[in-house]
Amino acid sequence: MTFKRTATRKSHESKIFELEFRDYQDRDGTIHNDLAVLNSNDAANVIAITPNNKIVLVKQFRFGIEDTTIEIPGGLVEPGEDSLEAVKRELTEETGYSADGFESLGKVYSNPVFQNNLIHHYIAYHAVQTDGQSLDPAEDIDIMTMDISDVLKRLQSGYFMHPHTVTAFNLALPLLKGMC
Amino acid sequence: MTFKRTATRKSHESKIFELEFRDYQDRDGTIHNDLAVLNSNDAANVIAITPNNKIVLVKQFRFGIEDTTIEIPGGLVEPGEDSLEAVKRELTEETGYSADGFESLGKVYSNPVFQNNLIHHYIAYHAVQTDGQSLDPAEDIDIMTMDISDVLKRLQSGYFMHPHTVTAFNLALPLLKGMC
Repeated sequence: MTFKRTATRKSHESKIFELEFRDYQDRDGTIHNDLAVLNSNDAANVIAITPNNKIVLVKQFRFGIEDTTIEIPGGLVEPGEDSLEAVKRELTEETGYSADGFESLGKVYSNPVFQNNLIHHYIAYHAVQTDGQSLDPAEDIDIMTMDISDVLKRLQSGYFMHPHTVTAFNLALPLLKGMC
Repeated sequence: MTFKRTATRKSHESKIFELEFRDYQDRDGTIHNDLAVLNSNDAANVIAITPNNKIVLVKQFRFGIEDTTIEIPGGLVEPGEDSLEAVKRELTEETGYSADGFESLGKVYSNPVFQNNLIHHYIAYHAVQTDGQSLDPAEDIDIMTMDISDVLKRLQSGYFMHPHTVTAFNLALPLLKGMC
């Protein structure tokens, strides 16, 4: 490794991450102080496809930007869960939909610059609404469905502004193009 | 807006972001405390294409994951810069390449869940190496070039793990497919 970690100082903890400051020593022996890193659980999201080839989307208020974005359902993996269990739970909690035929599409880093966690991407089929939403207190989510062909067009137009929704669609492109 | 901000408490500041905690009041009057948000400058990155249709890539050590990722060049917009000036500067500092014909591809949020900033994506042509690298002390970057057709194949295989590199390639897909 180019940089060897020489110190770790825990700082604030929020509901979704723990902030720490690290020191590193490079190959020349120079110490680089106070690199900030957020430790989080992994997250997972899912492209859930209905029997009539629509994709389940959520329009969600996001506190970082104080505005809404249009995303695929997903969330943090909870302790004791694997990413598949987490994404099935999040799909149902956020939208009331259940699906089957879940397949892994792959993964990306959340943001390797200063976060340690991964986003696991899934696709699932036969998505049907079987329940109501079961939201956390600070969640406000509208449910939408959109034709696969419309999603593919909007993917090129910059309509999807959440990077982890775009990275999921990128890995699903061959599958989605085969369905429309 | 669904949630109205009622308080902002500044916390730690790092080289790349400032952490703050916010309180919000929802439509029912309920207060939600301590939503953590990172304030940062916007960032920008660029798909720089050489005269022989190769894309300039950087293999960079990332402290969040304590490993390297393969990315397109980019970085934070500095005070007084616009995103185009920033991406031209970052391309030259990280790789020694200069290019012309810069065009905006669009933008995504860095992570709307808990960050306030945008990533601006650019494409540029006629990229040639005119200088050496000019790296920050905590940067360790190897320069690579890759055929456009190889990049497109690897985009589907999960080779690119930095989300903001994938989102740039997603917006450039029609242009890149037309060049190989």
